[in-house]
Amino acid sequence: MRGAVMHAPGDVRVEDREDPAITAPTDAIIRLSATCVCGSDLWPYRGTDAVTGPMPMGHEYAGVVEQVGSAVTGIRPGQFVVGSFFASDNTCEICRAGYQSSCVHRESVGTLGAQAQYLRVPLADGTLVATPDVPSDDLIPGFLAASDVLGTGWFAAAAAQAGPGRTVAVVGDGAVGLLGVLAARQLGAERIIAMSRHETRQKLALEFGATDIVAERGEEGVARIKELTGGLGAHSVIEAVGTQQSMMQAIRSTRPGGHVGYVGVSHDVELPGRELFSSHVHLHGGPAPVRQYLPHLLDLIWNRRIDPGKVFDLALPLEDAAEAYKAMDERRAIKALLRP
Amino acid sequence: MRGAVMHAPGDVRVEDREDPAITAPTDAIIRLSATCVCGSDLWPYRGTDAVTGPMPMGHEYAGVVEQVGSAVTGIRPGQFVVGSFFASDNTCEICRAGYQSSCVHRESVGTLGAQAQYLRVPLADGTLVATPDVPSDDLIPGFLAASDVLGTGWFAAAAAQAGPGRTVAVVGDGAVGLLGVLAARQLGAERIIAMSRHETRQKLALEFGATDIVAERGEEGVARIKELTGGLGAHSVIEAVGTQQSMMQAIRSTRPGGHVGYVGVSHDVELPGRELFSSHVHLHGGPAPVRQYLPHLLDLIWNRRIDPGKVFDLALPLEDAAEAYKAMDERRAIKALLRP
Repeated sequence: MRGAVMHAPGDVRVEDREDPAITAPTDAIIRLSATCVCGSDLWPYRGTDAVTGPMPMGHEYAGVVEQVGSAVTGIRPGQFVVGSFFASDNTCEICRAGYQSSCVHRESVGTLGAQAQYLRVPLADGTLVATPDVPSDDLIPGFLAASDVLGTGWFAAAAAQAGPGRTVAVVGDGAVGLLGVLAARQLGAERIIAMSRHETRQKLALEFGATDIVAERGEEGVARIKELTGGLGAHSVIEAVGTQQSMMQAIRSTRPGGHVGYVGVSHDVELPGRELFSSHVHLHGGPAPVRQYLPHLLDLIWNRRIDPGKVFDLALPLEDAAEAYKAMDERRAIKALLRP
Repeated sequence: MRGAVMHAPGDVRVEDREDPAITAPTDAIIRLSATCVCGSDLWPYRGTDAVTGPMPMGHEYAGVVEQVGSAVTGIRPGQFVVGSFFASDNTCEICRAGYQSSCVHRESVGTLGAQAQYLRVPLADGTLVATPDVPSDDLIPGFLAASDVLGTGWFAAAAAQAGPGRTVAVVGDGAVGLLGVLAARQLGAERIIAMSRHETRQKLALEFGATDIVAERGEEGVARIKELTGGLGAHSVIEAVGTQQSMMQAIRSTRPGGHVGYVGVSHDVELPGRELFSSHVHLHGGPAPVRQYLPHLLDLIWNRRIDPGKVFDLALPLEDAAEAYKAMDERRAIKALLRP
């Protein structure tokens, strides 16, 4: 099959890769209907994360089941399924508490490389969620978004306790931040402040339910959020970047007793204990347990209640993965979908 | 009046201080029935926090109202009252959300010096809570504990979501940690693991409701907690020290999706973002909004349902404040009560 492989920062190639095969009786093989490039794929692309050798890329996937292992009982060939970047058994105590991305048997899908034609999904019964039927083509970007960016934005909004009567600020205008806006709206937040200085992203934020746009960032951004919230700060702040500046911007934009939901993969972040102590915020985040939300999210998408697929403003054949990375790196695209 | 003043690390003297007077119409003056030395008083005593000049000491107080300002309507002379280390209006949006220690009008009581015969309490209506009547002498240590260490331990247990079906681990065997044990028990926790290597403190932890004692600390302590919790970590961890080691011990002892309630005043703590991200814990803490819990705590003490006064294993006349500090510094006493 064909699949994207990163050889070095900035060097992504689509190559022949070995077809995946069932290696454990709990595996499934899916034929990808669509896959995509993640903001977190840009960390190694930009050289911030090390690239130690050729790495198959991609961890977002939606597609049709081709084959299942002998122990798989809940999923069958022909079904359209969505899974998340961590395979999980969905039965351990951690999964049952809703933290499938910390499942005691979790396996990373990222190392298997979902930017490809086929993907082996471990722990298929626990990991994959099927739609009622094979969806029409126009719904596929939405389902693909559920695999990571929507599920991650949703977790961030939930961790930030977005809900009725609450003002939510969103730090980060990538796909996750924008879908954090959508999630906050769905969760009933009263006011949603998107922090963005890019016109196309501002526009999408407003479409997804943002009520205010703040273009300032850093300390100026914090001051603006305070100004909009009677000097107190937002009740809920979504952090969807993962840098020291974005984390501090999120914490400082939150009122005492408020909640920060952070999902940007931390890079060189060190949180000053004393300031955190004084801030009185709740801090929760990490790798989103997308699996927890998939049944609800697939239902919302299937019934066309939400259209998270709008974050894909570029769609290319899988063969053009290199250009997809480049467009996202240069911020010409919010998120690039790849058609295998 | 007489009051304790710190002149330099290790140098606490009881001196003549000016009698406090009403300076704002919302003030009250109370005659202290008892006061005490806090674990946090040991930071400057040990030179970890700077002592820039003579500092009146103490922020824990319970006593009888002597006089109130013209705007005070809820509190009257003769009442026995308890307040917390931050005066708060108890009416602002932050107070109403339960975060009185971040009240928009908060004033620090610590700078006023409660280790004395009399104390001016700002924002008396919002800050002070009266008991049904003047209590008998044997209850006074309990009410004094409510002023800080009990309220702080309670907040830590609540922030850690201690409750039915949950295993709680407590890092720190000072008065706050021990009362965190008591709070976790009151909140219905199933299993409470006190981390302590001091026999008298272990004994008190068991009296307060601990079900297990772990003497190991640091990485060995973490390993022991994991061993006791099926390899997963505790659901709830109370952090009541404030050092890098204790914070990391708390975070690493918590299972994914679990809750850390931290109330040890942070000293040179820097939380590594990536590890925190991966840990999947909820982190909440800071200066305890003791005021939120006072009505409930005073009721429990008044009705002799709890006896938090047991943390005072040393009682001295105010004049002997220097010895009280010394005994706590040398860990000869868990907590020293001072009789003005």
